[in-house]
Amino acid sequence: MRIALDAMGGDHAPEEVVAGGVMAARELGVTVIMVGKRDVVEAELAKHDTEGLALEVMHASEVIEMEDSPAIAAKTKRDSSMRVGMHMVKDGRADAFVTMGNSGGALAAALFTLGRLPGIRRPAFATIFPTVKGFTLLLDIGANAECKPEYLLQFAMMGNVYSRDVLGVENPRVGIVSTGEERGKGNQLVLDAVPLLEQAPGLNFVGNVEGKDIFMAAADVVVTDGFTGNVIIKGTEGFAWMLLELSKREIKRSPPALVGAFLMKGALRQILKRVDYTEYGGAPLLGVNGNVVVGHGRSNRKAVRAAVKVAKQMVEKDMLGTIRRDIESMGER
Amino acid sequence: MRIALDAMGGDHAPEEVVAGGVMAARELGVTVIMVGKRDVVEAELAKHDTEGLALEVMHASEVIEMEDSPAIAAKTKRDSSMRVGMHMVKDGRADAFVTMGNSGGALAAALFTLGRLPGIRRPAFATIFPTVKGFTLLLDIGANAECKPEYLLQFAMMGNVYSRDVLGVENPRVGIVSTGEERGKGNQLVLDAVPLLEQAPGLNFVGNVEGKDIFMAAADVVVTDGFTGNVIIKGTEGFAWMLLELSKREIKRSPPALVGAFLMKGALRQILKRVDYTEYGGAPLLGVNGNVVVGHGRSNRKAVRAAVKVAKQMVEKDMLGTIRRDIESMGER
Repeated sequence: MRIALDAMGGDHAPEEVVAGGVMAARELGVTVIMVGKRDVVEAELAKHDTEGLALEVMHASEVIEMEDSPAIAAKTKRDSSMRVGMHMVKDGRADAFVTMGNSGGALAAALFTLGRLPGIRRPAFATIFPTVKGFTLLLDIGANAECKPEYLLQFAMMGNVYSRDVLGVENPRVGIVSTGEERGKGNQLVLDAVPLLEQAPGLNFVGNVEGKDIFMAAADVVVTDGFTGNVIIKGTEGFAWMLLELSKREIKRSPPALVGAFLMKGALRQILKRVDYTEYGGAPLLGVNGNVVVGHGRSNRKAVRAAVKVAKQMVEKDMLGTIRRDIESMGER
Repeated sequence: MRIALDAMGGDHAPEEVVAGGVMAARELGVTVIMVGKRDVVEAELAKHDTEGLALEVMHASEVIEMEDSPAIAAKTKRDSSMRVGMHMVKDGRADAFVTMGNSGGALAAALFTLGRLPGIRRPAFATIFPTVKGFTLLLDIGANAECKPEYLLQFAMMGNVYSRDVLGVENPRVGIVSTGEERGKGNQLVLDAVPLLEQAPGLNFVGNVEGKDIFMAAADVVVTDGFTGNVIIKGTEGFAWMLLELSKREIKRSPPALVGAFLMKGALRQILKRVDYTEYGGAPLLGVNGNVVVGHGRSNRKAVRAAVKVAKQMVEKDMLGTIRRDIESMGER
C-alpha cells in the first residue's frame, strides 16, 4: 500500500511530519511517499535511519500555508504538496493522501482534484472522539459551516460505514446533536434532518443526543453541521487545556498536591491518553473520490503516524467502494 | 428587596429549593417568597429554623413539570408556581423571580406574563462560564434555537450591560463564537452578525472567538445562537463528567493514585469549584420585562442560593433600566 504524506503541512512540518512518516513506514508496513520540496524533505530524512524502509520522495515546489485561502489551495498553487499528493491519489500512484496542513485548503484541493463521490452532496470531516466507554465518531467537524438536512443524512450514512468497517462497531448507533433528547427539540436543521434519518434504510438511528450525551456514549456516530461540530471539538480542547492549566497552578501552590500528582502520574497518563488526539490520528475527509486524512495542525510525529494509520485502514476496508455502494443503493430505493 | 422563588421547580424540589431559599434569606438580606403549594412549602419550611428570617409563602396550586411543553407553561396551567411568581414581578409584588424548573416553560411563561423589554426582539439565557483567568458571560444558551443577526447584536448589548454592571467588568470585550479567528470564518449567521457588531456604538467588539478561545478568556462576553450555546455548555458539562468518571476508575485501580488523589484533594477542590455551576448560580433571562433567573434543573440548595444572589444583583444594578436605556439610545442613532 502506498500512502502520500504532505511533508510541508502543519505547525511542526517538516521535522515532525517526516519523523512521523518514517515511524509509519517502519511500524505500519506501508510505503510512505513524502511530498514536498525535495531538498528540504531529504535533509529531514537524513536525520533518521531509513535503511530498508519503504520511503519515497515526490517533489512539489509550493506549500499551502495555514493562512492561505481555500481558493489559493485549489487554484493558484498548482504545484503545492497538497495538490501534488492528491493528484497521485487521483492517478492511482498513491492509495491515500495524509496532510497536517490547512484543512480548508485540503478540502478545496480535494474537491478540485479528486471531486466528490457520485451522489455525495458534500464531503465531511469526521473525527474520533473519546467517551466514557470508548469512542464515538463525530462529523462534520468543519467542512460545511452551513448544512442542509440531506447533507446530514449523507454524513450519517458515511459515518455509519466508517464506524462499522474501519472502527469495527457492529450496527453503529447513529445520533444527531441537538439541544434536547426529545424529538422536536433543536434548530430547524435538526427538525428537518430527523425524519430523513428516521426513514433511512440500514441506519440504526437513535435520535437526538445532547452535548453531554456524546461523552456518555449515547451513540457510535454523531452527526451535526460543520459549525457546531467544530465548536464542539475546539471547545472540548479548550476546556481540557484550561483544566490542565488550573491543575498545574494548584499543584504548584501545595506541596502535598505536588506529591499527590506524582503518585497519580500513571493514572493521569491513562486519562490523558484517552482524550489525546495524537493517539487516534487525523480526521478522514469522507465523501471525496479518494482517501484523504487531515491531521491536527499541531500534530507531533506520533499524531502523524496515527493519521497514516487511519489512511491505511480506510484503504484496507475499501471505504470509498462501500460508501459508493451505500449511496447508490439508497438512490435506487 | 423581595425575591419570589419557585419552590416547586427543579429535580430536587421542593426540598433543596426551599432549603436554598432559607439560606438566601439568612445570608443575602433579601425577603424570599416561596411560591408553590402552601402545604408542601410549609412542611418543608418546618424542617428549618426560620426564626427571624424574611420568608413568605405564596400559594400556587399547579406545577410546570419538566416534560410540560412551553405552551402548557404559558397558557394552560394558569395557577402554576411559575406563572404566579412572574405575575408577582409584573405587579410589583416581587422584584425578581427565580426558578430551577423547565427552562423552556420559564421562557414561555415570562414572554406571556412579563413580555419583552421595548425594542428587544428576543430574550436570551446567559450564563457565567469559567475561563483560565476567571469568567466569561456566554449567551444565548438556549432561548433561541434559531437566530437572526439582529438578535445576536441585541444579545451582545444585553450581555455587555450585564457584564459591566452586574459582574463589574470594565469595558467588556465582546466576541462571537465562530470556527476561526479570522473575519470571514463562520456560518452565514456569523458572517451577517459580525458587521452589525463591528458598527454597534459603545460595544468593545473583539471579533470571532473559537471554541477553545472561550476558555482562554479571549472575551468577557461571548454571543452565539441558542443552539450552539446550549451544545457548548452541555458538551463541557459532559466532558467534565467523563473526566471525573475516568479519574475515579483509574484511581480505584492504583493504590498509589488513591493516596495521590487524597493528597491532591484540596487542589482538586479548588479546580472543581471553578467549574462547578452551583458556585455561580443560574442563568439570567435577559430581555424580558422583569428580572427572571433560571437555575440548573439539578440545582442543590447551594445552587439555589447562588441563583437568588444573581437575581439580587440584577435588581440592585437596575439591569432592566439599563438595558432599556441602551436599546432606546441605539434606536435613536
